[in-house]
Amino acid sequence: MPAAQPVIETDAVVVGAGPVGLFQAFQLGLLQLSVHLVDALPYAGGQCIELYPDKPIYDVPGVPVCTGRELVARLRQQLQPFAVPMHLGQEVAEIAPAGDGRFLLATGAGTRFRARTLVIAAGAGAFQPRRLKLDGLESLDASQVAYHVPDPAVFAGRRLAVVGGGDTALEQALAFAESSDHRAARVTLVHRRDVFQAPPERIARMRALVAAGAMDLVIGQVTGFAAPGDRLQSLDLTLTDGSVRPLAADALLIFFGLSPKLGPVAEWGLAMERKQLLVDPADFGTSVPGIFAVGDINTYPGKKKLLVSGFHECALAAFGAARHIQGREPLLQYTTTSSRLHALLGVGGTPRADAPD
Amino acid sequence: MPAAQPVIETDAVVVGAGPVGLFQAFQLGLLQLSVHLVDALPYAGGQCIELYPDKPIYDVPGVPVCTGRELVARLRQQLQPFAVPMHLGQEVAEIAPAGDGRFLLATGAGTRFRARTLVIAAGAGAFQPRRLKLDGLESLDASQVAYHVPDPAVFAGRRLAVVGGGDTALEQALAFAESSDHRAARVTLVHRRDVFQAPPERIARMRALVAAGAMDLVIGQVTGFAAPGDRLQSLDLTLTDGSVRPLAADALLIFFGLSPKLGPVAEWGLAMERKQLLVDPADFGTSVPGIFAVGDINTYPGKKKLLVSGFHECALAAFGAARHIQGREPLLQYTTTSSRLHALLGVGGTPRADAPD
Repeated sequence: MPAAQPVIETDAVVVGAGPVGLFQAFQLGLLQLSVHLVDALPYAGGQCIELYPDKPIYDVPGVPVCTGRELVARLRQQLQPFAVPMHLGQEVAEIAPAGDGRFLLATGAGTRFRARTLVIAAGAGAFQPRRLKLDGLESLDASQVAYHVPDPAVFAGRRLAVVGGGDTALEQALAFAESSDHRAARVTLVHRRDVFQAPPERIARMRALVAAGAMDLVIGQVTGFAAPGDRLQSLDLTLTDGSVRPLAADALLIFFGLSPKLGPVAEWGLAMERKQLLVDPADFGTSVPGIFAVGDINTYPGKKKLLVSGFHECALAAFGAARHIQGREPLLQYTTTSSRLHALLGVGGTPRADAPD
Repeated sequence: MPAAQPVIETDAVVVGAGPVGLFQAFQLGLLQLSVHLVDALPYAGGQCIELYPDKPIYDVPGVPVCTGRELVARLRQQLQPFAVPMHLGQEVAEIAPAGDGRFLLATGAGTRFRARTLVIAAGAGAFQPRRLKLDGLESLDASQVAYHVPDPAVFAGRRLAVVGGGDTALEQALAFAESSDHRAARVTLVHRRDVFQAPPERIARMRALVAAGAMDLVIGQVTGFAAPGDRLQSLDLTLTDGSVRPLAADALLIFFGLSPKLGPVAEWGLAMERKQLLVDPADFGTSVPGIFAVGDINTYPGKKKLLVSGFHECALAAFGAARHIQGREPLLQYTTTSSRLHALLGVGGTPRADAPD
């Protein structure tokens, strides 16, 4: 249980730091609202980074081509003048009315906010590791079955089975086979087929270590395990010819990628339609005044899950949030001409106090 | 009267080749609809080029900074794979139902289309030169009073008054003062104050020519004229001290910039609200099925005149146009993953005929 931290007071909390969440923070910044970003992933970028970091995107207006990673870098650069605090690797655990029209929001890591408005930009929901489904596996503790490795020392000197065919699986298998600090007693990489999704150098290095006898590679799937007294002892590996072979192992590291889960958003009491938050396309407000939803998580007549639509939704939701807080329509200013916006963005000459916008 | 040209058959005509019109054509292209672009200006880019070509824009998502000119160049590059024909320098003169559910559209230059859908992306309307308002001036022909110079030979060897303080006014004044082909007998630049909006080199060159006696500069305004028998003879120039001075002149070139006029859009029978076209935010359809409106010319609850909103409107209007033509919802494909879109955009490997999208 983390120690209670002081409550952060803010105009807006944006839940989700994917491309739409980042642009939402920028739009709120243009309207001079204070903003905090929260994301369950340990880095900004959401789906763009998780699902297609290196795939080109061709339909962002004015950007003929960029990868997911590049788009996120550009959006972070654009947001930079507003120095928005990011609370990453923290899932929102609780949202409750504060009684004074504000919202109390707490993350699993114990960060707490009192916010005048919330904007949910959670995409398809919080990303969570895909699980290996085997009866009883979940009763083994995180030092024996793990989906991420916060502390490699836990696994040093042990017989490890690393399962998966992606970059993370290879990276972890190589780290434990080669590390001077945290080398495992033995590493066995297990993947259902002899094809890997990783940079060619990394695949070549894995194959060289296997050829040199410094680690093992088994093409097959984990279909059972033995753990007398809740201590993992061995795995059953079913090979591609259907035969089953035991593997002595005292820890199992599983890297099957992440899959989105709507998670707690479904429990916040907002009107929904087929797992999406219903919003008003005039300001992307949900059924609760002061809570807005933008990007893939919302729905309204005509909705398409496109980046360009998410970006538009951010602009109108920012006006909605400002209107909710200030009780009047904020002035629409243009970044081409407004000296007030130039001062906020830190560009152009020093505006005179009496400069017309 | 231009000779009748064959009617162009197309899925869509986009009226307006500003940033939003360009992105509209791109979105229609992604849905495999044939498109033609029409604009009253002789170049693509609309307000971005006309009003702020060199001013930085900071709020295009994923583009931390770019000028209006750069944004248009990027949008043209993005549109390039679809090779969309542009009919520039042509104002739409007439829109009428073709009787078979299509629309007949004719431009002032005689280009005619039979289109299944129309998308109006006309911004604040067609740009037209700001006029000098003087009683009777409009009865003089274009060889005596002109707002643009299609053929400089018309003005060669004559006494010209060039009015205005912008780049175009200076450019024309210098051209007629210095040209070897089309030099004027005398050039007088007239501007209401001794401040010019043009590149410093151009202003310096003008001042050097004035100092050398190769042209004249008068700070004042044209407040009257004499034109016996409809032949311009002289102008009355009112100086800053209120005195009036005559200037012998047989042609007057006026460069006061362009101002937007809604023009014929107002006469097409579409539902409007305060000079904007009323649209449904689900697909940005107007009150006439098959006619859509995007960008600054439309209105709906929550509308903000922002580029990012115009771009979103393009995406949904493209789906609306495809639905209108095909009678069913088009498939939403992503440019990151769809091999069909990659083939259309001319990127990536050759897709197999059976490749999943």
